[in-house]
Amino acid sequence: MPKLRVHNVSVSLDGFAAGPAQDLKNPLGVGGEDLHTWMFRTRTGRAMFGQEGGDEGVDDDFVRAGDENIGATVMGRNMFGPVRGPWPDESWRGWWGDEPPYHHDVFVLSHHPRADLPMRGTTFHFVTDGIEAALERAFAAAGGRDVRLGGGVATIRQYLRAGLVDEMHVVVAPVLLGTGERLLGGDATAGYEVVEFVPTDRAAHYRFARSTGD
Amino acid sequence: MPKLRVHNVSVSLDGFAAGPAQDLKNPLGVGGEDLHTWMFRTRTGRAMFGQEGGDEGVDDDFVRAGDENIGATVMGRNMFGPVRGPWPDESWRGWWGDEPPYHHDVFVLSHHPRADLPMRGTTFHFVTDGIEAALERAFAAAGGRDVRLGGGVATIRQYLRAGLVDEMHVVVAPVLLGTGERLLGGDATAGYEVVEFVPTDRAAHYRFARSTGD
Repeated sequence: MPKLRVHNVSVSLDGFAAGPAQDLKNPLGVGGEDLHTWMFRTRTGRAMFGQEGGDEGVDDDFVRAGDENIGATVMGRNMFGPVRGPWPDESWRGWWGDEPPYHHDVFVLSHHPRADLPMRGTTFHFVTDGIEAALERAFAAAGGRDVRLGGGVATIRQYLRAGLVDEMHVVVAPVLLGTGERLLGGDATAGYEVVEFVPTDRAAHYRFARSTGD
Repeated sequence: MPKLRVHNVSVSLDGFAAGPAQDLKNPLGVGGEDLHTWMFRTRTGRAMFGQEGGDEGVDDDFVRAGDENIGATVMGRNMFGPVRGPWPDESWRGWWGDEPPYHHDVFVLSHHPRADLPMRGTTFHFVTDGIEAALERAFAAAGGRDVRLGGGVATIRQYLRAGLVDEMHVVVAPVLLGTGERLLGGDATAGYEVVEFVPTDRAAHYRFARSTGD
């Protein structure tokens, strides 16, 4: 059975996946970049930003695992871009330039309809009828492979609460943010259990899955 | 300068220091015991419960560090016992038997006065005039050594928010609780920064301190 998977979501020790005061200059909020220091040091993480070098090893393996056997992506509108409300025009085409790093169909949750946006290797589809409809379309597009759930936090929490996430990989970074967007708890993680814990000297990796009820 | 220190507080991956539905049978709430599996496997942790054996190493070093150079303890009333409201009598004498493991003065925050309770090696004092007064009395009793802040969660959060904690050691256990008492964030950790991150194969240890403002 194809799965819905979440990968490489970093949280601070105090539980925030983004810092306070998010804006265009600080898309991850103040201090939020520090959550991803461990990733920026990996070979795969650096390659995502067109940089050379970086380390191999456990952290890198986790970054890479996020792309393995993924046939489609679902994401919230805030991860696609900063535009709020009805789309004023078609000019916002994502954060990623002409060739987004997905190379498969991406389903963007939105309350506001918009035509499909085909780009080099990736087509963005805007889904207005809810998280289950988006997931269904993504599974169909993935052709038997798994679906990856991107962010943001609100979107991940919605899917967790609905019990639709099969596997999630969370990384606790050695950082405090004080306040911000909280990822886990508040019933979002009820019914899930930790299945893997792998610390490195830069971060602690946890994988969890729906409880088997034993 | 003597410090106020917090040690060996375990939280779940989703941020809870105790599980839901705390009662006398489950003083740490449902699932809360699992937060401390790493500690029960250490030599020092086992000795606390009168058990032999257990491992030495990094986890054990952290448990032991919690007692080093400590001259007094402050704790919330809920850590002292389950009695709520005015003390009906003097019969509740703590969870720890005739010889509590402190061997120094312990200051218990309470809204309800009660006479000092001297026990073998430890005297419990009940402080009704707030967290700062309790801390002042504890520093005086500690005679130049540090003061340790015990739990519960609400008490730790009060001291964090007031900026009175100098150092805190938190352990993220590979466990999800879904809901419960949340330890960090919600502004309690604003103004603090991580100064040490030491993972082991059982848990991830973080130490944080007040930011130096650099």
